[in-house]
Parts: sequence; C-alpha cells; structure tokens
Amino acid sequence: MKPFLEKDFLLDSRTAQWLYHDVAARQPIIDYHCHLPPELIANNHRFANLSEIWLHGDHYKWRAMRTCGVDERFCTGDATDWEKFDAWAAVVPKTLRNPLYHWTHLELRHPFGIENTLLGPETAKAIWDTCNGKLATDAFTTQGLLKQFRVEVVCTTDDPIDSLSYHTQHRANTQSTTQLFPTWRPDRVLMMDDPLQWNAWIESLADVSACSIVSLDDLRIALKNRHDFFHEQGCRLSDHGLETAHASAYTERELVATFARARSGEVPSPEAIDQFRSAMLYEMALWDHVRGWTQQFHFGAQRNNNSRAFTQVGRDTGYDSMGDLPIARPLQCFLDRLDGTDQLARTILYNLNPRDSQLLVTMMGNFQGRIPGKMQYGSGWWFLDQKHGMEQQLDDLSDLGILSLFVGMLTDSRSFLSYSRHEYFRRILCNILGDEVERGLLPSDRGLLSQLVQGVCYTNARDYFGFDRR
Amino acid sequence: MKPFLEKDFLLDSRTAQWLYHDVAARQPIIDYHCHLPPELIANNHRFANLSEIWLHGDHYKWRAMRTCGVDERFCTGDATDWEKFDAWAAVVPKTLRNPLYHWTHLELRHPFGIENTLLGPETAKAIWDTCNGKLATDAFTTQGLLKQFRVEVVCTTDDPIDSLSYHTQHRANTQSTTQLFPTWRPDRVLMMDDPLQWNAWIESLADVSACSIVSLDDLRIALKNRHDFFHEQGCRLSDHGLETAHASAYTERELVATFARARSGEVPSPEAIDQFRSAMLYEMALWDHVRGWTQQFHFGAQRNNNSRAFTQVGRDTGYDSMGDLPIARPLQCFLDRLDGTDQLARTILYNLNPRDSQLLVTMMGNFQGRIPGKMQYGSGWWFLDQKHGMEQQLDDLSDLGILSLFVGMLTDSRSFLSYSRHEYFRRILCNILGDEVERGLLPSDRGLLSQLVQGVCYTNARDYFGFDRR
Amino acid sequence: MKPFLEKDFLLDSRTAQWLYHDVAARQPIIDYHCHLPPELIANNHRFANLSEIWLHGDHYKWRAMRTCGVDERFCTGDATDWEKFDAWAAVVPKTLRNPLYHWTHLELRHPFGIENTLLGPETAKAIWDTCNGKLATDAFTTQGLLKQFRVEVVCTTDDPIDSLSYHTQHRANTQSTTQLFPTWRPDRVLMMDDPLQWNAWIESLADVSACSIVSLDDLRIALKNRHDFFHEQGCRLSDHGLETAHASAYTERELVATFARARSGEVPSPEAIDQFRSAMLYEMALWDHVRGWTQQFHFGAQRNNNSRAFTQVGRDTGYDSMGDLPIARPLQCFLDRLDGTDQLARTILYNLNPRDSQLLVTMMGNFQGRIPGKMQYGSGWWFLDQKHGMEQQLDDLSDLGILSLFVGMLTDSRSFLSYSRHEYFRRILCNILGDEVERGLLPSDRGLLSQLVQGVCYTNARDYFGFDRR
Repeated sequence: MKPFLEKDFLLDSRTAQWLYHDVAARQPIIDYHCHLPPELIANNHRFANLSEIWLHGDHYKWRAMRTCGVDERFCTGDATDWEKFDAWAAVVPKTLRNPLYHWTHLELRHPFGIENTLLGPETAKAIWDTCNGKLATDAFTTQGLLKQFRVEVVCTTDDPIDSLSYHTQHRANTQSTTQLFPTWRPDRVLMMDDPLQWNAWIESLADVSACSIVSLDDLRIALKNRHDFFHEQGCRLSDHGLETAHASAYTERELVATFARARSGEVPSPEAIDQFRSAMLYEMALWDHVRGWTQQFHFGAQRNNNSRAFTQVGRDTGYDSMGDLPIARPLQCFLDRLDGTDQLARTILYNLNPRDSQLLVTMMGNFQGRIPGKMQYGSGWWFLDQKHGMEQQLDDLSDLGILSLFVGMLTDSRSFLSYSRHEYFRRILCNILGDEVERGLLPSDRGLLSQLVQGVCYTNARDYFGFDRR
Repeated sequence: MKPFLEKDFLLDSRTAQWLYHDVAARQPIIDYHCHLPPELIANNHRFANLSEIWLHGDHYKWRAMRTCGVDERFCTGDATDWEKFDAWAAVVPKTLRNPLYHWTHLELRHPFGIENTLLGPETAKAIWDTCNGKLATDAFTTQGLLKQFRVEVVCTTDDPIDSLSYHTQHRANTQSTTQLFPTWRPDRVLMMDDPLQWNAWIESLADVSACSIVSLDDLRIALKNRHDFFHEQGCRLSDHGLETAHASAYTERELVATFARARSGEVPSPEAIDQFRSAMLYEMALWDHVRGWTQQFHFGAQRNNNSRAFTQVGRDTGYDSMGDLPIARPLQCFLDRLDGTDQLARTILYNLNPRDSQLLVTMMGNFQGRIPGKMQYGSGWWFLDQKHGMEQQLDDLSDLGILSLFVGMLTDSRSFLSYSRHEYFRRILCNILGDEVERGLLPSDRGLLSQLVQGVCYTNARDYFGFDRR
Repeated sequence: MKPFLEKDFLLDSRTAQWLYHDVAARQPIIDYHCHLPPELIANNHRFANLSEIWLHGDHYKWRAMRTCGVDERFCTGDATDWEKFDAWAAVVPKTLRNPLYHWTHLELRHPFGIENTLLGPETAKAIWDTCNGKLATDAFTTQGLLKQFRVEVVCTTDDPIDSLSYHTQHRANTQSTTQLFPTWRPDRVLMMDDPLQWNAWIESLADVSACSIVSLDDLRIALKNRHDFFHEQGCRLSDHGLETAHASAYTERELVATFARARSGEVPSPEAIDQFRSAMLYEMALWDHVRGWTQQFHFGAQRNNNSRAFTQVGRDTGYDSMGDLPIARPLQCFLDRLDGTDQLARTILYNLNPRDSQLLVTMMGNFQGRIPGKMQYGSGWWFLDQKHGMEQQLDDLSDLGILSLFVGMLTDSRSFLSYSRHEYFRRILCNILGDEVERGLLPSDRGLLSQLVQGVCYTNARDYFGFDRR
C-alpha cells in the first residue's frame, strides 16, 4: 500500500515516475491564464495569515463549507480569520474524494512543507501556526511564492478599462523573477442585458479613453484604442466568458439601433443583444488576429444561479454551474467567418459542461492549419479542473487531436497557492503516459516521451504565445 | 483468477474487503424510495413461485427477453409461470455483461443460497424447484424477506388519491421489523395533456376528499388535504417523474383559464400546460418545505415510446428511454424561486440521461446551505442503476460535491429481491475507496473511511429524512 | 514492461490472450459497411506506392497533418507521392496517443510485416521502399489484400444512381474470395436545401431510370425502381447520413408543393425540407422492410464546417465534426410510426456525438422484438472508432442492451489497409472480457465466452443480414 500523497503520488509505474521526476518536475511554469490580482504581485504583498491567502475569495471552499451546513459568516461573513480557518478545517475530513482534499494537502506539503499530517479539527491550530510563521518570511510574499514555484510568466485577467498601472509598475521591477502580462477580457461590453451596469461601464471606458461614446463607432474606436494599449503593455491573449458562441446575422443599421436603444437605458430584445455580441466578438477577433494574439473562449457556465446569494454576496462567490445551450452551429459560424478571410487568430476553446468536450475538440480540427497547434482545446476548466476532468481532457484531446502540441496547464486561479495544480497536472500526464508505455500501448522511447512531456509542460506554451520575454 | 461472484466479488483490494465485510455489510437498510406494493407487505404475502416474485412486473427482464426475440407471451402474456421462467432462463446466458447477469446471480445467491451454479436452460428446473421450496417458508414471505435483508424502513410510491389503508394496517403490526411509509407522488395532477384521464383522476381525488373540484382552488384544497393526510401517515418524501424541470412564468388568471379548459375536456396549449405544471410543482414544493419533507425529482425519462406496445400492455412495461430536453435554465428558475424566499425543502435530484449528470451536481451546489447535504444528487437511477452507472454517480458526486454526506442507495424496485442491489452498491463503494487508499490517493485512516462508508450506507439516510422511527 | 504493439498487444490477461488468439483471430471478416471503391476491387487494382494506398483520400491523416502545420500541398495538393509520404512520416511521432499512431503501426505490421520499427523521419525511406516492394506483388492488389485479411463480404456505399457495373463485373469473378455487395445510400435525394445540386441529381436519376421526373410520384417510382435494382444486385442494407432524425408531420399536398418548388430551383423553407425528408425516409424505410433489408442511420455529423476549404477541396476532406441537435423525440416518432404497423426493418443506429450514446441504446430497446437483436447499436463510428470509443460502445451496449447479439465491427473506411481495425476491435473486446473474467465479474466458462466472441466477431453478422452467400 502506497502512503497518502507521498513522493510518487499519482505515479503508478516506473516510467511515470521517471517521466515526472526527471522531466516534468524540472520545467518552469508559464501561467498563461489566471485571476491573480496584479496589485498584490506588483506590491509583493505579504499575507497576514493562512485564511487570507487560502480562504479569502476561494469559492470552491465556500461551496464545500455551505454543503456541509457551515454558516455563511464563516465563508464570506465577518467571522475572524481564525474562526474561518477553524471552520474550514472541520470541513476538510468530509471532503474525501473531492479535489479539495488533494489540493489542500498538496498545498500544505508544498510550499508549506507540512507532510504526514491531515488537516482536521485536531490539527488545525498547529497547521495555522506553522503556516502563519512561514507566511511572515520573504519566501512567502507573492513574488517569493512565484519564485518558489518557478513561475516565469503570469497572465492576469483584465478589464479593458483597467489602467494596467500595476503591470507597468511590475515591469520596472528587475528583482522579480516573474513577468507579468495583462489579458484582454472584455466581457462587460457584451452585457447589454443590464443597461444600467452596461452604461456605467461604457462611461468608464469613455473616461479612461478621454473621449465621449455617443455612437457605436465611438465605442469601437475607444475599445480599439484600449486593445492597442493592452498590446503595448505586453498583452498577447484575449479571453471571453460566454454561455455559448454567438454568430447571428446582423446589419450595421441594426447594430446602430440596438446600441442607441441600450445607451438610452432600454433593454434590447434577446435577438438584438445576440446580434450585438456576434458583431463585437467578431470585430475584436479581427484585432486579435492582426496583433498575433491568442483568443480564449470559456464556454458553458451558467452564472449567478442563486438570486438571494447574488444580492447578499455578489458574483463569483460560488453560485455558478454548468449550462446546456447548443453550441455546434454558432461556434462553427463564428470560426468559419474568421477563417473564410484567413483572419482567424490562434484560439483556445475551454468548456465547462463535459458533454460538449468531444464536440469542441472535433470542431477545432476543422480550422487547423499553418501554425502547429493553432487551435487548442483548453485544459480542464473550473469544475473540470480535477483528476477525472484532467484525465478526460487529455484523453479527448489525444483521441481527437494532437496531444503533443498542447499548450498545457494554467491555474485559472485567484490564489497564489494554486501552482501546485501544475504539479498535479504533470503527475497525471506522466502517469497516463507511463501506464500506456508499460502496457505496450506506447513505445518505450525516452526521447519521444520526454519531448512530449516537456512540450506540454513548458516549451509549447513558451513558443506558442509570443510573449515579449526578458 | 477470482471465481465468479465469490465472497470478495467486486472487492479488489484488502482495504476494500475490510471496508465491506467489517463496515458496510453490517449496516441495516433504509429503502427511502421504491415501488413495492404496500398490500403485499401489509398482508405478508407468500409468493407462489419464482416467476411471481422475479418476473411478474420486471420490465428490465422483459426488455432483455424481447431483444433476444422471445415472444411477448412469455413476458407479459398468458404463458404459465414455469414457461415464463424457462424462457427467461434461456435468455440469461445471453445477458453476459448486462447488469441482469449480476442481479440474477446475486439474487440467487442471496437470499436463495444458490452458489456456483449459473442460470441457464440446463439448470433452470433445479433452480426453479429449490427456490420454490424456499419461497414456501416464512423467511421468504414479504416481511420475512425484508427481515432477512435487514430493511428497517420502506418508503413506497403512492398516488395522492391512495387511501394508504395498507400503510395503516402495517403500522398496527408490531411483529414486522420493517416500518412502512408512503411517498407523495402526484404525477397525475400534472398530466393535463390527456384530459380524459386527467379528469377521471380529478374526480377520484374529489371522491377520496369528499368534496367537489370545480375550481382551481378546489383542487389546491383537496390536494393539500391529501398532503396533510400523507404527513399524518408518516410520509416524509415527495417524488416527481418529469421529462425536465418546469418553471415558466404565469398569472393566476392564466392558471384558472387553463384549469377550466382542461376540466371541460379540452387539451390546453403546451405553453399553458407548462404553466400549470410550473405552478403546481411550485405550490406543492412549498407544502413539502413547511412539513420538513424531502422532495425528489426524477428527470429525463421519455416514456411510452412504443405506441403499439402501449395499446397492448400499457405503461411501465419496458418501453421507456432517455430524453434530451434542456434542463439547466428551468431547473435553476424552479429552485431559485423557492430558495429566494427561503422555502426550498431538502431536495434529491436524479437524472436518467448521463449527459446531464455533472450539470445537476453543480446546479445542486448553488442551493446548499444550513442543513448538511441539504441538496442531494441521487443514486444511479433505472438504466444507470448498474456498475458503471453507480461508479460514475459516485465519481461525479465526489468530484463536484461532498460524497460523505450522500444519503446513498435505494432500490427503486418493484421486486422484493432487489435488496441485493444494496450489497452491490456497497461493494462498489468500498472497492472505489479501497483502491484509492492502496494507490495513495486517500489516506489509510480507518476512522475516516469507516465513518464515510457507514454514513453513505446507513446513518446519513437515517438522520436526513426525519422518519418517525419506532 | 510489455514491448510496444507485440503479440499480446491490448491483451492484458491470460483469458484475454486465449480468447483473442484461439477464438477471435480465427474468424473471417464480414465488412458490412465501408467506403471502398468497387472499381478498385472489381479491377483488382495494384497500388503504385504507399502514398496511394495510405494517404490518398485519408482525411484522418490530413487533419493530423494540418494540425501539425503541414502545408495543404502535402495533403490534398500537388506534391509528389514521396513528398507526401515524407511529410506524413514527420508527423507520425507527434501523434502519440492519437488512434493514428496505433493504426499506422498496426497496418505496417500487418500486412506489411514491418515490426519493431517506428515510422518517423529517419525510417521513412526504408519503410517506403519495403512497402512499395510488397505493393508490387499479387498479395497486395485489392483482391490480394482482401484475401490476406480473410474478408468474405464487402458492402460498399452507393448512390441510387450508380450503375453498379463494378458489382456486376465482380460477381462474375470466380477467383475472388470476397463477395461484393452494394449499399443503398440515398442521401442526395434529401439535399433539397441546395436546389442546383439536387436538381442535377434528380436529372441523373431520371437518366439512369430512363424516365422523366416531373412529379413527386415520378420521383418515387424512379427511386423504387432503383431500390428494386439494388436488391437484385445483392444489396441488403441501406444507409443514411443525417444530422438528426426527421419525423415531422406532413400532408401529401404539402409534399407535392415542396417538390414543385424545389424542382423550379427555389429553396423550400426549413420546415418544408424537414417534411420532405421525413416523408422520403419513411417511404424508403417501408421498402427496406418489405425487402428484408437492414437500415442504417449515421446520426450526428455536422459536415463541411470550413467554407474556405470546402471551396478549395470539396467534401469529405477532413472538415467535419460533431453536431448537437436534439434527437430523442424525432427518432422515437420515426421508429414508432414504422413499428406501429409492424413495418420496422432491422435497424442499426450509429451516433457521432458520444453524449447521445446511451440515449440511442435505450431508444433501440423500445423497438426490439421477434428477430433476435433486431435493433442494433452500431460500432464506434468515425471519431469514435478508436480505443476509448470502442470500449465505451461495448460498455454502453452491454449495460443497456445485449452485447452477445451485436453484429460487431465494420471498417467504414476508404482504405484497403483498414482491416487491421478488426484486429484492434477484437483485441479490445477480448481484453474487456478477459479482464472481467479474471476479476470474477464474469464466469470463467469457455463455452459461454467463446460463443459470445465468435458471435460478435463473425457469426452474428453472418446470420443477421441475409446476404446471398456463395
């Protein structure tokens, strides 16, 4: 029997162990998609305690706590940081088989160095004290952690109206071993179904652009200026969070009328909103292509499902789940229109509802060409960012696409501790390959295997995105 | 090589064997959802032969027999019981890898004590005789069987118009070791698309309620009275069989008009029927919440697909399959409306089409809180009530929810022999856990593991439903 | 560690090895569905080189090459055959874990006899020379290859307007060990959404039928005549490639109007086209029933997704993927209508999007009866024709249907080398069974097991289709 979470965790064969320890574990990390706050990186933030770095903002943990009947006071409420941690510690033993159980103990082991101890009510205080002691040291500031994890690149997720001042600040920091780049995430320009918020956002865009936005063309110019500005700041990726793809037909006249209507505070019809989204996504995709960016699409989340909680604690607090809208036809239309004029940028498709995984991988295959691995099927996302999800993503991509060109794992996280997910992913990848080698399903060719692993862990991403590396 | 179906059947590791034999196998059974006829329990029915207990009413077996080309006469027709059994015995060897092959031999082993014999044409007569001999004994009456299987609670599935007289009768029986409770299953009030049958049902409801049902409010009062009556009889669960969730907008005026139209024998429009269903489900859900009941939803069956067979042999005879209606949005609306006013009862969601499994588990997570495991993702149902289905349900629940709070297995069966499915489920559960312990994916902590297993097998259900236990 | 692709490739247990080598491998092949060109068979074509037999027409390989950034010139373009092969050889090492990696080396091993050599840039020339040498011999003509693979029956896929002259020619060839039958594939009669092509096809049908097609009844008569002719030529199967099932209500008057409209060159409404398709599919299904044919439905491909490529290289060139249209209700209506009058022919359902697999298997179960295994769930198709897809198909069929009646594997291929897929399928089937026997999940009963394997590999298909065998 293998002890829990030891050196060869998830590595069931000799080939897997060799691949992981000798190849995968040595690769640096390029975290091309995450939600880390740039301010904390630029300012080299030091965390007050384990709750701040681990529980604040972690809606995965909150969902588990609520499921176990823990009061909201200990999740997003006004309990003290110790009380919150203590409540979380009591929940951990109940999460057996949930990815949180692995994440938790992986993160305690690395970077905190806590081994052979399971988090639970009895061990909570000792772990709290140990970790808080470490968090006070320089190796556990934000930049210290990124260095420990050997993160070469972090791409944050940023609103077009963001000043990117922290990115600018960090670029001047020659001490940091990590480069910080922004990502263009213009979701809010599409949220015309809430005209109040949408107009407020448009005004902010006008402010940051030092112009006024009266017409649709004004909006285009302002957005394009921000896109240019993001590029100057090193941005090489865009990202869109969408329930499904949008590709309805429209005329400029219709768009202009819809824009005017929304600007006047009215809600356009669902069809008109869909047209507007189709148009904006298409136009922004053209900019991405011109700039040589990679566009990312995160499909399939149905968000803010609990109105009461939304009123109380807002968005991104653990009330999202999988949607089930059709996607094959609109996604094809969207990609085909861009490809038809040879203006389709590098693209990564992520999906949340696993029932659409294989569809997306095969859809991707329709638009490959010229750039190796141009169309990518993204790593297991959100609810799928766990062992079975990762294994399924690797299998689907292998069965229906070319695994060896995969740009690999990203954290998609708000937490500086989530880099252990790269370790998790790499172990799983090596385990799959090792198992198949031992069973005679893959050749035992160390050159081929290590090249594949190195590519998926590091070099593919390094070569694909075209970051302006130091 | 392991012999077929021996002591450690499905238990591939030492940890699994320990967990099953020392923990799981010792737990009693709370069968909180089944379709056993209360009359047979109350009257302590004795079965004439193996066909009566095994084949009468078993549409799983009929489907297999029809697939093998067996004439309907031997399924639902007028062949003798021996002829039917003989026909079934000839089919069994063809069902290798179908769950029926396991169910069949599990049930022969326990309770009939037949081991090391495969059912087939050559063994049919001997097995028939042995089993019939046992069926004549007291240990094989309905109550005898429930005692053998250590079933503490049986919840039947009952129409609101049912008098529950057998439940009353059984409650007075102090000899029986099994408590019998009804379940509120008001599907027929929603079946307005067949006004003839629907009106007949409304009339029956009026009769049993000793009132007349002229208006929609009359219907509400009559139904609510039955709901109260069911509660008095110990009912703590409701259940709804639906193709998908219903949550369309409506006004009272629209409902009243739809009700009047259907009462006059006309078929309302699909939209009006959907409104009516949305309203009735919502209102009954409020009653469930007030009473502290658990509401169950069985989503995704498309029923009575074969018109010719429906005419000949009626419903629930093996002509149902999986549907593919969208569910994310209506289910969210339904649950959110109830949760918005804090009137959402404990809820169990079951689904038939596995493509929606992960969606449902994540949807559930949006409405957790206060009561541990309040929202439950139900055990593999119907076509999914087999090894792969159970494993997948346990994995989905583990990956996306909290397995340790799961209320576990139920039979959902019309047969008194189906309790061996609890054994099957428990073996599978222990095998998954044992395997992961041995591979270092779970800690080898006997306390944690046995608590989880005991909870899922017995104590979670015991504590969750609030039955009025003796 | 097992060497790559050796004798016991995919056979992980002794039982699996016995089942494969002693039972499965000895069975001949009945390839009841493929896309081999009858001309090449009838003329006993000899291939000029490895590119001709391996790369020409293989859109799986082209997709992989495009994904790796290979120029279209080396896929469908004017590069020389050697250049194309060399380009493909460079891609092969990148396809690790893709089914192409297994197919490639399986095909090199059998029939080319190349073992212990991995295809790649360094080995390309030697393999090219070796294979080209063999291709020049009689054992590698089309008929030679079919004989080597012990293919008893090949069913090609043919347009109703095809003269079937090569089938006639081949029938006269008493040397060939393989019988050649046509399959009725009338997709083009349904493609009314492209009136130009549709009318051209109607004219061709009129020509081959030596009649004029002015009215819908003319079309019916012409088509029916061709159906009769196909039957005379030994055809016993029809096949339909459809995005989803069609079963909308229609009247003869509506059909007549739609037909007239399309004949005049206009595009009927989507609803009218759906009616026309519903009617034609229904009527042709009646003919299949009368003739005792088996009808096949391939559901779920969304084709020609890349317009630019479609213009450049046409259809079936690697730009197809999975669709996501609803299917449960229309498929039920279609099958139920036929079954209602007892006119439902033997039917095989294939699906491309795996999210619908279990739905289809359970739908099938609604229409079984009389003929053993009458309704069949087809082998993993296209993108699903790989290890995971085959395993899933076998599991779904086993869990929800009767595996032992399965008519088994087919190639669905345009290549004379694809018969190694039968070997692959048979190894996978034996491995699943062997594993379950060793784990005590199936009885170790050699008679039962070998009967099942023999049935699925050969005898079920032999007995099911009713070919006019020599």
